[in-house]
Amino acid sequence: MNNTNLQDYSHKRFNILTGEWVLVSPHRAKRPWQGQNEAVNNEKRPTYDEKCYLCAGNTRINGEINPKYTDVFVFTNDFAALQNDSPSFNVNDGLFKAQSETGICKVICFSPDHSKSLADMSAAEIQKVVFAWQKEFKELVANPSINYVQIFENKGAVMGCSNPHPHGQIWSQSSLPNEVDKKNTQQLNYYNNNNSSLLGDYLAQELEKQERIIFENDGFVVLVPFWAIWPFEAMIVPKKKQANILEMNTEEALQYGEAIAILTKAYDKIFNTSFPYSSGIHQAPTDGNENKHWHWHMSFYPPLLRSASVKKFMVGYEMFGTPQRDITAEQAVKMIKDCL
Amino acid sequence: MNNTNLQDYSHKRFNILTGEWVLVSPHRAKRPWQGQNEAVNNEKRPTYDEKCYLCAGNTRINGEINPKYTDVFVFTNDFAALQNDSPSFNVNDGLFKAQSETGICKVICFSPDHSKSLADMSAAEIQKVVFAWQKEFKELVANPSINYVQIFENKGAVMGCSNPHPHGQIWSQSSLPNEVDKKNTQQLNYYNNNNSSLLGDYLAQELEKQERIIFENDGFVVLVPFWAIWPFEAMIVPKKKQANILEMNTEEALQYGEAIAILTKAYDKIFNTSFPYSSGIHQAPTDGNENKHWHWHMSFYPPLLRSASVKKFMVGYEMFGTPQRDITAEQAVKMIKDCL
Ligand SMILES: O=P(O)(O)O[C@H]1O[C@H](CO)[C@@H](O)[C@H](O)[C@H]1O
Ligand SMILES: O=P(O)(O)O[C@H]1O[C@H](CO)[C@@H](O)[C@H](O)[C@H]1O
Repeated sequence: MNNTNLQDYSHKRFNILTGEWVLVSPHRAKRPWQGQNEAVNNEKRPTYDEKCYLCAGNTRINGEINPKYTDVFVFTNDFAALQNDSPSFNVNDGLFKAQSETGICKVICFSPDHSKSLADMSAAEIQKVVFAWQKEFKELVANPSINYVQIFENKGAVMGCSNPHPHGQIWSQSSLPNEVDKKNTQQLNYYNNNNSSLLGDYLAQELEKQERIIFENDGFVVLVPFWAIWPFEAMIVPKKKQANILEMNTEEALQYGEAIAILTKAYDKIFNTSFPYSSGIHQAPTDGNENKHWHWHMSFYPPLLRSASVKKFMVGYEMFGTPQRDITAEQAVKMIKDCL
Repeated sequence: MNNTNLQDYSHKRFNILTGEWVLVSPHRAKRPWQGQNEAVNNEKRPTYDEKCYLCAGNTRINGEINPKYTDVFVFTNDFAALQNDSPSFNVNDGLFKAQSETGICKVICFSPDHSKSLADMSAAEIQKVVFAWQKEFKELVANPSINYVQIFENKGAVMGCSNPHPHGQIWSQSSLPNEVDKKNTQQLNYYNNNNSSLLGDYLAQELEKQERIIFENDGFVVLVPFWAIWPFEAMIVPKKKQANILEMNTEEALQYGEAIAILTKAYDKIFNTSFPYSSGIHQAPTDGNENKHWHWHMSFYPPLLRSASVKKFMVGYEMFGTPQRDITAEQAVKMIKDCL
């Protein structure tokens, strides 16, 4: 591979997991920025906020009182995007096509400490979050109408997060979301053709090159994928092929916690700010099939580009054409590693 | 179709043009908002700003001086994401796949008047913008290495627009962007199976229902598509099947100008603010084929949801799963029509 070209000239890279492309414009990083600056709030929050509806012991909008929880606390979303008790219907009227979609949405508080984020928590503390994800996943998929579980976190006001208390969400539903469907197809085709895991083989190639690796421990690799879209996008991948997070044992849950801790701490150092992102776990559908082709992984999509206040906008060309990035994955990995 | 269900219960709708879904949660509009508020700037701008690099007669960052233009002015982007003179290369190294991508990026000023937006311009003034799009399109596709031309506008700071002077962009390139590729496939399949235009047949169905139509004149229909993602998303579609904007005659260019004028003026009234959006024209590839299956159209993706300062965030679930909306397309169309 002629790596010089990839650092100098506009090109596109292929995302093996979605089957889609990203446009890379390495020469464009020199562009001056005269656009919108994001508000930066580096104020230290209190460990408890009486107005926060996620803090222990406080009352939520629907009148329920949060328990005095000491580590992780999960509840059903008071304003869930998916309903579980709605009628089943199907619209098939010429070119109008719609289907009812049921599901269960949960909120998971990572810590009772209002002032913290995952970046301030230890591997062992994050291990408890991982245990909670596993427990919820197990419970949700026991419901036969749940065929997919999406675990994610929106961190920071710029990522639409409406409460700074450390928390994530779990939306589970009856059908496969668009992005999961794409990754399902790509992994299945590869598995059928090669009898091995697409992501496993990719990991082997990345570990050999050592060009985009941020960190690894016995169980996990943290890297910037070759096809990263967001400026400092990163992925955490288990070394063993596992279809979903239930296959992780206790020790691996700690290694996973360490990977999350290391990555999020490095993020906070890049621009000396609590780094906003959306993160999410992609894993096998829970449709009753074995889904041997699936290799679960977690991705981080952070929007900041140049500083704590200047983000990358995925707008016009990106919405109508293809996601576009300026700094290359290789430049980004260097900046993240400098912050380890 | 049981429209009551679509207004009451969570469901997904199918986008016939991309083959992907949108999750609709009508019951969720009641959710209180405690998150980020966008800055609103309702200040009237001057008609000329000496610091604006798009105003007539001013000097751009690269030292070039803008002519004293009186209607539309086009120039090559000083910080283009695509280069036209870069080497051609191909990376095919196991699971690393990349290709050089060349292209030409242009900026188009819609008016010399710094204070205006398309919403403040007449149909006849916008017709001149349409003529400029046609002229640029014609010139660009004369270049054999250009196989697709993406015309778009980012309006408003919240949409990453770095200069309020009324302007849009044209990025042209050698390969098909992701979104265009999807629409190409869907339209081609439909055309092969039905020997008619997917969008033409859809238009006929919408015109019969009259549930999502905002406006129509002799040449164009403005509507909220059944599968709209953004709260007030809308689409302008020519009544005749035309593969690209070159097929529009002078009269149709004026009708198109009227459609843009009417829609953008209505947008500004919804929340009594200069309504931000990204808009774009999707049209046939310019790869030398006839592309009879293509029916060009323009879409508007505005982010505002509840007020001038509260937008919809396409984050966690939307990035990892499926785009999600709260108000339905049918509710949105009523609000837009109230502003006509
Ligand atoms: O080209 P501009 O206006 O400088 O930049 C804007 O539009 C581009 C095309 O959608 C995006 O890539 C940028 O992120 C955005 O800030
Ligand atoms: O559920 P929340 O935190 O209220 O809302 C946030 O995350 C959701 C899931 O990604 C998005 O649909 C919302 O637009 C966003 O503001």
